[in-house]
Amino acid sequence: MANEFPFFAAHPELTYLDSAATAQKPQAVIDALVHYYVNDNANVHRGLYTLAYNTTEAYEAVRGQVAQFINAKTPSQIVFTRSTTDGLNLVAASFGPLVVHAGDEILVSGAEHHSNFIPWQQLAKRTGAKFVVAPVTKAGNTDPAAVAQLITKRTKIVALAQVTNVAGGVVPLAPLADQVHAVGGYLVVDGAQAVAHMKVDVQALGADFYAFSGHKLYGPTGIGVLYGRQALLAEMPPVQFGGEMIDEVLDAQSTWAPVPLKFEAGTPNIAGVFGLRAALAFMAGLDMKAVAAQDHALVLRLRAGLLAIPGVTVYGDAHSAGIVSFNLQGVHPHDVATVLDEAHIAVRAGHHCAQPLMARLGVPATVRASFGVYNTAADVDKLVAGVAEARRLFHEFD
Amino acid sequence: MANEFPFFAAHPELTYLDSAATAQKPQAVIDALVHYYVNDNANVHRGLYTLAYNTTEAYEAVRGQVAQFINAKTPSQIVFTRSTTDGLNLVAASFGPLVVHAGDEILVSGAEHHSNFIPWQQLAKRTGAKFVVAPVTKAGNTDPAAVAQLITKRTKIVALAQVTNVAGGVVPLAPLADQVHAVGGYLVVDGAQAVAHMKVDVQALGADFYAFSGHKLYGPTGIGVLYGRQALLAEMPPVQFGGEMIDEVLDAQSTWAPVPLKFEAGTPNIAGVFGLRAALAFMAGLDMKAVAAQDHALVLRLRAGLLAIPGVTVYGDAHSAGIVSFNLQGVHPHDVATVLDEAHIAVRAGHHCAQPLMARLGVPATVRASFGVYNTAADVDKLVAGVAEARRLFHEFD
Repeated sequence: MANEFPFFAAHPELTYLDSAATAQKPQAVIDALVHYYVNDNANVHRGLYTLAYNTTEAYEAVRGQVAQFINAKTPSQIVFTRSTTDGLNLVAASFGPLVVHAGDEILVSGAEHHSNFIPWQQLAKRTGAKFVVAPVTKAGNTDPAAVAQLITKRTKIVALAQVTNVAGGVVPLAPLADQVHAVGGYLVVDGAQAVAHMKVDVQALGADFYAFSGHKLYGPTGIGVLYGRQALLAEMPPVQFGGEMIDEVLDAQSTWAPVPLKFEAGTPNIAGVFGLRAALAFMAGLDMKAVAAQDHALVLRLRAGLLAIPGVTVYGDAHSAGIVSFNLQGVHPHDVATVLDEAHIAVRAGHHCAQPLMARLGVPATVRASFGVYNTAADVDKLVAGVAEARRLFHEFD
Repeated sequence: MANEFPFFAAHPELTYLDSAATAQKPQAVIDALVHYYVNDNANVHRGLYTLAYNTTEAYEAVRGQVAQFINAKTPSQIVFTRSTTDGLNLVAASFGPLVVHAGDEILVSGAEHHSNFIPWQQLAKRTGAKFVVAPVTKAGNTDPAAVAQLITKRTKIVALAQVTNVAGGVVPLAPLADQVHAVGGYLVVDGAQAVAHMKVDVQALGADFYAFSGHKLYGPTGIGVLYGRQALLAEMPPVQFGGEMIDEVLDAQSTWAPVPLKFEAGTPNIAGVFGLRAALAFMAGLDMKAVAAQDHALVLRLRAGLLAIPGVTVYGDAHSAGIVSFNLQGVHPHDVATVLDEAHIAVRAGHHCAQPLMARLGVPATVRASFGVYNTAADVDKLVAGVAEARRLFHEFD
């Protein structure tokens, strides 16, 4: 698999275990970007000439491919964004004030990434709503039972990651969606860490909104997707104004284009959309059950290896979707990462944009290893050996 | 020059005259994207390993290169955005409410692009300010005298394009900046159509904010720049929330990172930034006086050629910065563009995201030809011949 990714040929010495931050790109994705710029570069929705027309048609067709990828009903439910963060902020800024009022409640998990935490915290502040943060499991994952218990008649928005980004827990969303819908609220899903690891079905999940990024899905940076329920997108006001999102602009007032163009002011990341198309084609060629099985095998192997090292705490559990966070007693995670870096092992150490979770775990940071389709048991073994070596180095004089 | 752009080798038959919509890319820009994904792909501001560290350093260094390109004082005044539109909306959403209150005035020209018109129109609506639209010249350009006359003691924001996108007029901004500063207001500049055609000096212009896009500057799609005066950026609240824009996130409240990261929530378009760097290097290799001279020669040649065809109205004037709009009497601009397309000439026809200007010119649309550094006199002659042919076709039975 790694041979489809030119990054690994360029870095034969490197063990890349940071795909939850950003995935490496298959040659086909890079080729798609080059192909676009060499052959098809024209702005979209603007030109009438053949090149611009064809590029616009192809660009719009990618919505259908995205819709199929996440099982959305129609392509018009697919809004192209810059990133997951951009999509979640769009929902908070545009949909939030339509449904959240003083005294209402917004509910998140204590395991959320900042991008699915702060927009809601700030929306609550602006609207006078109550911002409720559900307790997490001891392993650092979203606790569905705790979330369920905190859904009340005043809950207007529940915002959850499908897969949490530190401990990698897969959150069973469908029952929570039913529960929040029953009280007249909405479920917003951060899919950033899910889409590369499992078949996503937004309808089965009961998601009212679902956001993800291209760059964690083996696609380019600067492109993301926001899915929304049709009726909701239709009533939402735009948050940015400019070219191609309008119907009519008069001096005194303006009217907007239909969904999804209403939310896509200005020239979009056209090359990014074609790169995303190539990433979706790459995903379509994968057996997602095999991907999940490989994730699972690597997670088990890594957990077992780490837990065999004295003084290692491992977060999450055996069902983690390709993400394993851990700490080494008495050694700062940054130091662990630095020692690993010297052995050419790339892992992330830090708060992982999840400070509320770090506070709950009582640590400033963790070391995080995360898997892509190119990772192997040998990568895991190298990491385990590296952590053992880090322990030896730092505890030499204990 | 065209041989540096692989697009033209792929389209030997095409005369591309739509660079104001998006420019073609030099090989070096495409190579930079490929190089990034193959060699340097890692998320920025997050990882501690060597690859992530180096990529972050290189990414941050591009701010300095952008600062130099527009003569900003410091790299921290450079905010990476998705596009010009994104940058202008950021200013309207974040800075707007800090300085614009009920009864204040926001002043734009009737020649503005929607992206520098609607954000201000909507800000005025939200704040109860007066939205003032200055009359344009007969040629369809911003009229600096008309703008000057409308600046009052209540004017808080003047938003103008440095080069208008339909008639291509270069607006002398510095005196207007002095005037608006004298009444305690601010100048916001849409630089989208300027940066590829002239040396921009944001300090000499007196711009408080200056926004432009990479893709009109021979760079990639999905990346833009917002420059702002330091003291203003510092006091502005973020408009998006998420990773890397924070200082500390508690359940009850969050605090923000310093400028510019405060405005860059989530994973940015990292590849786009490196593509932009390559575009800036390409620009640095150009003699901008020679570029302006070539623009001028092409504009003069095109205007003369068009004006020699009976029934052609040409907007703008001889000093246009590489953009010439026109109409052919009795023929819809869309039909002109379609005939030109059959002759493999790519021009844009439409309202050019400038409906307020169309209303002022009394037309639904225009045909627009715009030049990049790769265009030649032969391209102009082909266009003029094409327009003459369109006239012959449509007026055959007059």
